[in-house]
Amino acid sequence: MTDLADTPASALWEEWLLLDAAGRVAGFHALPEDAREDFFESLDPREQVDLLLALPGRERRLWVRTLAPDDAADLVQEAPADERPPLLDLLDDATRFEVRALLAYAEDEAGGLMNPRFARVRPDLTVGEAIRYLRRQAAQLETLYYIYVLDEQQHLVGVLSLRELFQQPDDRPVHEIMHREVITVPEDADQEAVARLYVQQDFAAIPVTDATGRLRGIITFDDIADVVREEATEDIQKLGAVAPVEEPYLSVRLTALVRKRAGWLAVLFLGEMLTATAMGFFEHEIAKAVVLALFIPLIISSGGNSGSQATTLIIRAMALGEVKLRDWWRVLVREIGAGLALGLILGAIGLVRILLWQVVGHPYSPHAVGIGLTVAVSLVGVVLWGSVVGSMLPFALRRVGFDPASASAPLVATLVDVTGLVIYFTAASILLAGTLL
Amino acid sequence: MTDLADTPASALWEEWLLLDAAGRVAGFHALPEDAREDFFESLDPREQVDLLLALPGRERRLWVRTLAPDDAADLVQEAPADERPPLLDLLDDATRFEVRALLAYAEDEAGGLMNPRFARVRPDLTVGEAIRYLRRQAAQLETLYYIYVLDEQQHLVGVLSLRELFQQPDDRPVHEIMHREVITVPEDADQEAVARLYVQQDFAAIPVTDATGRLRGIITFDDIADVVREEATEDIQKLGAVAPVEEPYLSVRLTALVRKRAGWLAVLFLGEMLTATAMGFFEHEIAKAVVLALFIPLIISSGGNSGSQATTLIIRAMALGEVKLRDWWRVLVREIGAGLALGLILGAIGLVRILLWQVVGHPYSPHAVGIGLTVAVSLVGVVLWGSVVGSMLPFALRRVGFDPASASAPLVATLVDVTGLVIYFTAASILLAGTLL
Repeated sequence: MTDLADTPASALWEEWLLLDAAGRVAGFHALPEDAREDFFESLDPREQVDLLLALPGRERRLWVRTLAPDDAADLVQEAPADERPPLLDLLDDATRFEVRALLAYAEDEAGGLMNPRFARVRPDLTVGEAIRYLRRQAAQLETLYYIYVLDEQQHLVGVLSLRELFQQPDDRPVHEIMHREVITVPEDADQEAVARLYVQQDFAAIPVTDATGRLRGIITFDDIADVVREEATEDIQKLGAVAPVEEPYLSVRLTALVRKRAGWLAVLFLGEMLTATAMGFFEHEIAKAVVLALFIPLIISSGGNSGSQATTLIIRAMALGEVKLRDWWRVLVREIGAGLALGLILGAIGLVRILLWQVVGHPYSPHAVGIGLTVAVSLVGVVLWGSVVGSMLPFALRRVGFDPASASAPLVATLVDVTGLVIYFTAASILLAGTLL
Repeated sequence: MTDLADTPASALWEEWLLLDAAGRVAGFHALPEDAREDFFESLDPREQVDLLLALPGRERRLWVRTLAPDDAADLVQEAPADERPPLLDLLDDATRFEVRALLAYAEDEAGGLMNPRFARVRPDLTVGEAIRYLRRQAAQLETLYYIYVLDEQQHLVGVLSLRELFQQPDDRPVHEIMHREVITVPEDADQEAVARLYVQQDFAAIPVTDATGRLRGIITFDDIADVVREEATEDIQKLGAVAPVEEPYLSVRLTALVRKRAGWLAVLFLGEMLTATAMGFFEHEIAKAVVLALFIPLIISSGGNSGSQATTLIIRAMALGEVKLRDWWRVLVREIGAGLALGLILGAIGLVRILLWQVVGHPYSPHAVGIGLTVAVSLVGVVLWGSVVGSMLPFALRRVGFDPASASAPLVATLVDVTGLVIYFTAASILLAGTLL
């Protein structure tokens, strides 16, 4: 028995990203014969391409032919355009035909994920005949978990698991034991929707049908685990205001890394310029009471932070299907409650801090109570506003057809900063009128 | 054929969170007989408990007994403490014994995820005997994907897929065709590590062994899909500075929602108070040149935004295993490059904006060029510093044993705000000495 941590394959896995092409080939050849296939399969398509193109031609053919058609299609898709035809030529005729068909689908739809090879039987076979027939198919298949029952036109008429087939006596016909209600997805279903269905329903495989109900392929757990990860990565990167980066961090070129970040950073910067404009209107107040300037970063960052919390919760709840567009009103009510409570907590801390400072150390001014109250009231307003904007922004984005995950923490902070300043200086001009201002 | 969108089960799924206990029972009973089991299995353990406890006793027993031991254990774990013994009593003796053993494991380790029922054969059976033997076991099992070969002391000595078994002639002994190198995980392996292994290796199931190499259970794709989602949700919530919220957003009580957010918000607020202290040192400069105050939000938010981008990229790369602790130096070099480039871009935009404003509209002061240069230089410094702090914080947190995902965008922004102010006012005091200051 071997824990993964001990195998030569895992040592190579750890090193992989740090090796150059020659090092990878050498490491791959150094693996024991029977570990190579597992290792090759465990690489993602981009890594498979890199390795393949570094291998001699004869070996290249050998390894490409170990792949299931959907994995071969992924590999071809990741290869540089001029390498695609020679890679396709390495496949046997039947597989090349299947791969070509898969390449016609968009990468992120059900058709682009599916494997066109699945276990199939006719409804009038007996259990014994079906098992013998499946044993003949087995070498071609990726999984035998579900057995699909097709009529002569390849329409999907039923399904049963191999486990169910196994439990039945040899002479029972398949059509008596199959399930006739089958959940399917259309060829052009979005991969994110398929992943959500998959995780909700705990399927081992989902059949993909065309418009006439003919079975075209199945999507299996390994395709979906990748999608779940990919979509989570994309969501997380959007939340951090980075355009989705598909390659591993250490392999992306520096110029690409800067490009993925510069766009959002510049947009946020232009938005944030409005704070300078807004503050221009309060220049007079700041000149009269410089002490007000001291609390500006504190106030606006609190709005940004509470907004970032709210937007994170809502985006994730939307991604998991817990919150739908029509729930916006219930979310708003909750966030007004949460925002008020959080604002009161921060306001109280702020007030205590300013009064304490006044007593023990550095006195801000003879008007410490007024300043403390101004800061406290502003915090309630800003945190409430941050929670409301942060929670409603994903709804607004989805409503107009954008991805709600674009409501990144930095975007919410930027939206809230300008209004935060207005709230703060308005509170000051009311509460400090006649004393400081 | 039915797309999920059309089934009565899916309509109920959509409504589920909005229904009260009586409504859920009514909806569940309204489902066609054969859709109920699928529906019940598709609920997560917490929802299963809620539904079960609302059902009459007789039905409760029926549904608990449809669950595999690992799913029953999850359900018992989610039930209120006083409901756990009666729920356990509903199980048959053999399953209760297995569930009790599973409950002894922590929820987030391999032992807590595994199903103790798996397909097993002896090494000296022939292929034909093994298939007949498996057909007798089939009713008890969750999956027949891999067949585990055990010796008389239950030690795992080999594995083969049913697909491989199927391809072999009836009279060949199993020990001739099984794989002897089996990747296993120990009972106490962390679920996140298991999930990573699972996704990397595209396994359909991973065997869990005890210290002596005895097979204790298997972890299957459905357990892992849940873990991948859970861990992604947790990471995303931490990135938004929210303590992990396990229940759906709309079902969490408002007080719990506030509690999950108040902690981090208060910590960030206390940290952000340092900005008021820092600005105290520059009160004199602000009094002399109020115009400097106008650009404070712009400068510090740019540092926070670039830091948030860097921290997001690094945390996700760490979660995917693309970046390891020892790579910190390579990351630092990249981020110095990226930070400088991004800082120069924002600095250039800022300078153009200030000079343009001076010409076309609202003149800031006769020292616009000096102010523009101060802002531009500060932006380069602040964005560079934000990228460095944001990228290094996850390494620092991991180094001292914390979860790197705690390096939320708001935490990074808070850390960068104080230094951003210092950079800005230092640049001002050098570049504007003798003119404005």
